[in-house]
Amino acid sequence: MTQATLTISSKNYSSWSLRGWLLCRMAGLDFTEVLVELDDNARQELLLLSPSVLVPRLTHDDVTVWDTLAIAEYLHEIAPKAGLWPAAQAIRARCRSVSGEMHSGFHNLRSALPMNLKSKHESFKIFSGARPDVERVKTIWTECLDASGGPWLFGGAPTVADAMYAPVCARFRTYAVELEPQLAAYSDTVLSWPLMIEWTAGAIAEPDEIVELEVEF
Amino acid sequence: MTQATLTISSKNYSSWSLRGWLLCRMAGLDFTEVLVELDDNARQELLLLSPSVLVPRLTHDDVTVWDTLAIAEYLHEIAPKAGLWPAAQAIRARCRSVSGEMHSGFHNLRSALPMNLKSKHESFKIFSGARPDVERVKTIWTECLDASGGPWLFGGAPTVADAMYAPVCARFRTYAVELEPQLAAYSDTVLSWPLMIEWTAGAIAEPDEIVELEVEF
Repeated sequence: MTQATLTISSKNYSSWSLRGWLLCRMAGLDFTEVLVELDDNARQELLLLSPSVLVPRLTHDDVTVWDTLAIAEYLHEIAPKAGLWPAAQAIRARCRSVSGEMHSGFHNLRSALPMNLKSKHESFKIFSGARPDVERVKTIWTECLDASGGPWLFGGAPTVADAMYAPVCARFRTYAVELEPQLAAYSDTVLSWPLMIEWTAGAIAEPDEIVELEVEF
Repeated sequence: MTQATLTISSKNYSSWSLRGWLLCRMAGLDFTEVLVELDDNARQELLLLSPSVLVPRLTHDDVTVWDTLAIAEYLHEIAPKAGLWPAAQAIRARCRSVSGEMHSGFHNLRSALPMNLKSKHESFKIFSGARPDVERVKTIWTECLDASGGPWLFGGAPTVADAMYAPVCARFRTYAVELEPQLAAYSDTVLSWPLMIEWTAGAIAEPDEIVELEVEF
């Protein structure tokens, strides 16, 4: 009998927690969620993307793995039939590339448009530093959807890439980012994904105390 | 006959190019180097870690892969015996975790201590925002070396993790960061690695025109 625990933080704010949770569910892992207790410093650090708050973190028997892409690779090893990565090697390489881009980049997008599932703006001014990030996301989505035919980035089922970009779909909704029809349809696919609906319900149920945190960027 | 090309940018400045190049050499790949022509905008973006300059990029027959970790995973698939990742699953998960941390984090370290292989400071004031990053690197190295016995992070041979932290060793030398004996020995191992010496020679041979670029952070 294996035991698995996924440590996450705020469901409303932590985009990395969302990604790790989606991946574990996509892999069919039976796991217990543990929410980290965040003091004020840790909350600030979490929102400022400090490496000292290491969520998500998966423990599975004697394995501990705490980086989102490392979790994805581990889950792919233990559940190879779950289709976390596409089956064809060249397409898998592309899927890993766009997932890796999300993992290492888009800092302006993250700072300017932090994930906040409880919030929805009618309009929102995106500062110039974040606009290239928004455009790059649109380019990636367009290239993937054109190549795969959708409705997910790599075809008929969600992959790691969709988990990686799911918080971006939520941000684009929260901050009223306009999308071309093809990209709006993709975002709708992600936001109506039963796993996203389940996670978002958890975010909405979070105490407002966390929501009222103010962060300076 | 397979054809492989690795696109990189400045050998002196581009830490991601260094990582991708180390990984390709570690995997025994026979590849041609292509240096991207950078205009002034692209140079700024490169140094500011913009996602729009996508190096390193590996093309190998019909496969194109452009993110450092995605390149690592692709190389591991085509050269499984090269030992890019440790053989034991739990240790491999840890190796991927610390590699992923480097991939997605340490932004203050990167901004405050940019890789500059031609440069060496006698002393250097590290601003407070980067100090937690330096401490986190030391913690990771200590934990890995204690567990593996060294001289590399995961034992007797370099893995992806060493390629990921190699530019950090170079930064610590350039900016005179003090290291405890165990960590100094590790850094020496990396900096005397024949592949690092070969890359560094290429950096030193680069035109000074690139070196004179001033970047505002």
